[in-house]
Amino acid sequence: MDTDIIVIGGGHAGVEAALAASRLGYTCLLITQQLDTIARMSCNPAIGGLSKGNLVREIDALGGQMARLIDSTMIQFRMLNKSRGPAVQSPRAQADKLAYSSLAKWTLEKQRDLFLFQDTVVDLIVDKNSIRGVVTARGKKIYCKKIVLTTGTFMEGKIFIGEYEEDGGRLGEKAAKGLGKSLRRLGFRLGRLKTGTPARVLRSSVDFDRIEEQPGDIRVQPFSFAYDKVERPQVSCYITYTNEKTHKIISDNMHRSPLYSGKIVGKGPRYCPSIEDKIVKFPDRDRHQVFVEPEGLNTEEMYLNGISSSLPEDVQEAFIHSIVGLEHAVIMRPGYAVEYDFVDPTQLYPSLETKLIEGLFIAGQTNGTSGYEEAAAQGLIAGINAALSLAGEKPLVLGRDEAYIGVLIDDLVTKGTKEPYRMFTSRAEYRLALRHDTADIRLTPRAYKAGLVPEEYYERFKEKVKTIDYIKDLLQKQKVDSQLAPVLDKDIISTHFGKTLYNAVKDPNINLDEVSIYLANTYSLNQGWIENALLDIKYEGYLAREMREVERFRKMENMKIPANFDYKKAEGLSKEAVEKLSEIRPLSIGQASRISGIRKSDIAALLLYVPRQKNE
Amino acid sequence: MDTDIIVIGGGHAGVEAALAASRLGYTCLLITQQLDTIARMSCNPAIGGLSKGNLVREIDALGGQMARLIDSTMIQFRMLNKSRGPAVQSPRAQADKLAYSSLAKWTLEKQRDLFLFQDTVVDLIVDKNSIRGVVTARGKKIYCKKIVLTTGTFMEGKIFIGEYEEDGGRLGEKAAKGLGKSLRRLGFRLGRLKTGTPARVLRSSVDFDRIEEQPGDIRVQPFSFAYDKVERPQVSCYITYTNEKTHKIISDNMHRSPLYSGKIVGKGPRYCPSIEDKIVKFPDRDRHQVFVEPEGLNTEEMYLNGISSSLPEDVQEAFIHSIVGLEHAVIMRPGYAVEYDFVDPTQLYPSLETKLIEGLFIAGQTNGTSGYEEAAAQGLIAGINAALSLAGEKPLVLGRDEAYIGVLIDDLVTKGTKEPYRMFTSRAEYRLALRHDTADIRLTPRAYKAGLVPEEYYERFKEKVKTIDYIKDLLQKQKVDSQLAPVLDKDIISTHFGKTLYNAVKDPNINLDEVSIYLANTYSLNQGWIENALLDIKYEGYLAREMREVERFRKMENMKIPANFDYKKAEGLSKEAVEKLSEIRPLSIGQASRISGIRKSDIAALLLYVPRQKNE
Repeated sequence: MDTDIIVIGGGHAGVEAALAASRLGYTCLLITQQLDTIARMSCNPAIGGLSKGNLVREIDALGGQMARLIDSTMIQFRMLNKSRGPAVQSPRAQADKLAYSSLAKWTLEKQRDLFLFQDTVVDLIVDKNSIRGVVTARGKKIYCKKIVLTTGTFMEGKIFIGEYEEDGGRLGEKAAKGLGKSLRRLGFRLGRLKTGTPARVLRSSVDFDRIEEQPGDIRVQPFSFAYDKVERPQVSCYITYTNEKTHKIISDNMHRSPLYSGKIVGKGPRYCPSIEDKIVKFPDRDRHQVFVEPEGLNTEEMYLNGISSSLPEDVQEAFIHSIVGLEHAVIMRPGYAVEYDFVDPTQLYPSLETKLIEGLFIAGQTNGTSGYEEAAAQGLIAGINAALSLAGEKPLVLGRDEAYIGVLIDDLVTKGTKEPYRMFTSRAEYRLALRHDTADIRLTPRAYKAGLVPEEYYERFKEKVKTIDYIKDLLQKQKVDSQLAPVLDKDIISTHFGKTLYNAVKDPNINLDEVSIYLANTYSLNQGWIENALLDIKYEGYLAREMREVERFRKMENMKIPANFDYKKAEGLSKEAVEKLSEIRPLSIGQASRISGIRKSDIAALLLYVPRQKNE
Repeated sequence: MDTDIIVIGGGHAGVEAALAASRLGYTCLLITQQLDTIARMSCNPAIGGLSKGNLVREIDALGGQMARLIDSTMIQFRMLNKSRGPAVQSPRAQADKLAYSSLAKWTLEKQRDLFLFQDTVVDLIVDKNSIRGVVTARGKKIYCKKIVLTTGTFMEGKIFIGEYEEDGGRLGEKAAKGLGKSLRRLGFRLGRLKTGTPARVLRSSVDFDRIEEQPGDIRVQPFSFAYDKVERPQVSCYITYTNEKTHKIISDNMHRSPLYSGKIVGKGPRYCPSIEDKIVKFPDRDRHQVFVEPEGLNTEEMYLNGISSSLPEDVQEAFIHSIVGLEHAVIMRPGYAVEYDFVDPTQLYPSLETKLIEGLFIAGQTNGTSGYEEAAAQGLIAGINAALSLAGEKPLVLGRDEAYIGVLIDDLVTKGTKEPYRMFTSRAEYRLALRHDTADIRLTPRAYKAGLVPEEYYERFKEKVKTIDYIKDLLQKQKVDSQLAPVLDKDIISTHFGKTLYNAVKDPNINLDEVSIYLANTYSLNQGWIENALLDIKYEGYLAREMREVERFRKMENMKIPANFDYKKAEGLSKEAVEKLSEIRPLSIGQASRISGIRKSDIAALLLYVPRQKNE
């Protein structure tokens, strides 16, 4: 059973890690407590969303699986922020939870060199600060060369509902005990975080006539760059709102919340708060949105997105029944909070390998993040880097200018996190460079070189690149004239008459949808690729400006700090800076500059002393 | 949340109980520890088999769900014992486990008046020997009028693999703790039973070239009487065998088995023994069959039917690798034994209501049975009777002459069981009367009267009855002549020339398949119905003889014993008989005669005193 790489955990991080490692040619064993819950969506039934959709497309561009999984199991698609700038647009899809999980498991099972095994890892085998294997609950010792640890909410997990608490990683599922202790013994700093989920209700008990229907987009766009189109049944979601009565019920019972009674010590996700948190933090808001989502095509369970809660069940029932449309909602599972161990991610290199134990990589919620996409992105990078290190190659580290994945991991390992970290568009400095539709342009060439994407994927990518050039060329040649009347507004034609269509595309008043449909029909080209070209042109100027900033950024990133750099010898560094830099051990002066508490004067000192120590 | 009926447990018994109760118009709440494992097949991925297939068809004839579930999710169908007499023929199908479970859950969710809730029942609320409600692990008190208890292997469940043990109902799933204690406190006699399951292996690691393929039948016949045909993809199973090396590995390690080291106190299923048991009990056998079954269409897990084991994992791996075709099998989940609390079923009436607590019904493995079909059959009857008792109606009790379900429940409540009880054809005295294809003829009229089957089902049933009469009539009219040469053998034609086809059907040398296909094509009739008619004719004589025995049996069954009958006053009863009869409280002299230890002299005494006490 001994293997090259062991992946601990079968969630969204574990799935990507195991696939990546085995696709790179190493034997990989994924150990999970429960084979039937692989890639289970613990929380809301959706993949993507603002900046998260970008993560999913980046995962795809790097040969990961998440985009393909959701393309095959989605039940509603929407492109968010369609009316706003391209930097903040992102795809989101509702998932059939069971189908998603089942397809993920099947994908793993069919992967060559990848094996699944049901057991619980309770301890790590370490020799001279190098990972050697695992010990399982059933007493097996399994040896390996690298480990990717992805425990999600299961490591020493504890579930809270009002006054009630039980050990568990999800409601009704056992916690994974032992590993937290093991990591602490090895010298890791661990903390507690908390997340939560709302009640699930029976579809037939919801009064749909009284709430707003939200259908998906007519045009369904694949997440994966490998597909031209996705054909899946599309169903609706629904929107309703809490009200003052809801808020009063919650306020009146706040003392019964484990969050406020002090039972839960872990910090919850700031940007995905429980309804209790929302009531406390935004006392002036007279309503909060509740997004009622189907959990799949073949289930009547519905998810009440927006009112996650760990209040006692009677209180949950009462406040849910105060909401329009949910007056008679029948609860099938209550909402709950789950508190779990996480590892302070500043103990990791940007490769996601730990600094303490060579060969031990950590990914996903274990690093303090929240969200399926954030977990999958880390799992993919950890799996790739576990394999690359076996091959004796340099790790794959993405820059903040290259990918949301770069932003994510740089934030984690440089700044750490005190609460579940969630990706946002605003966390990225160079948003125009990180459009979801350019994820392959940014990442696939590197992924192909590393052997992460198959030949046919790369061929298709090259065709896309060629097509985009061809479209740009076409638009340079095509002059605006009255023949374009069915496509362009009168005003646009008169403003740009005789000039190139290329230039007209930059006009803020042009309707790019019309142009892309026209080009797609006229030249039989992939509409997604045309849009990619049009956005490139439209934002050419902004992008050029952003690229100048990126250049400055890269200069700092390229100023590497040697792994053994002695900060104590660098005069002019504050005491705090010496401490923090010695602990975080940034790879570059760029990374050093982002560590909290590091001042301009510290950077100036580094700029002086790093080249000097290098020469010594 | 208070409700008419609470069903505790979401396995095969719970599913039928909840559907039946709510279809009869009562609100029903099914409480399960884990909504995602409803109707999960803990053991082999198949429904039906000898006599078990009859149970499934009887469940269907009574308005139950199991036949429809397997018809919609089967991946291989076989009619067993096709070459032998009709009394021992029975349908069996491989199931897609995940699809089966998911469809069952969805069916429950869509049922009017039926609600699902995820929690664990830890105690019962009883008032003056009447059931009042339940207490859950999360501290909820839920009140109701009737309860159907179906805990499967979860009540105080414990899992064993070699030296390892953990609390659990299935590997990786939590045990249900508390209820066993609660039942003991209420005065119930409980015992421990044990069952087991083999390892699951990865499809791509099996060497299919070296083992025998077993495809399904070409003709797929529905289990449900509601369907004309089933259209599902059909896949193969595979057969291999243990050998002397396998047996030596097991023998050499027998001391490490929890079964033989004394760790497990519960008794295992005699007719579905672990491979350890087989080696010990049949030392002369040089091989045992291993039936390699796919667990579904969208999974690579395969089930090793026939080598269930609780030996340590290293031993399991070693003996599996000694089997032809499994030399490199990769184990995904190990085999294990599970020990659990069961209730001595002699504490129940034939309605499945307990004698101690009014309104508490028990069904499934909790009553000491083994098998999905046995569980479902009891669940259905318990659910029906819980509803009928609310309606103030007499319970539905099926006779041993009417249904395998009757045999099953009569055996349980009259004789109890010391080991997991499994249905066999040989347990039924009147096998010809219990053919699988006549389950609807036997049961549907009663089910329709009780409101258990919908109108369209009953209409179809009436059409079937009419068609069978029509076919019999047709065969009475049709003379055997040379025009039937394409259908009948030369010899058959010459033997029966000029006589009726009806008589020819009784000839043991006739090929009934040919006749049924001929009739189906010529008259455009349902082939299953034709076969039903042909078997009726062919076995007319035997059946008539059997019916005379049934008449005698019924006479004894109809001699009812009053519930308050005082056995102490019946002179001539042995002391043992008084004790046993007072405890079992048989409903009839017939049932009394089947209690172990009851002699002919005791029955003679009852025949004298029962009418006398009735008159008093």
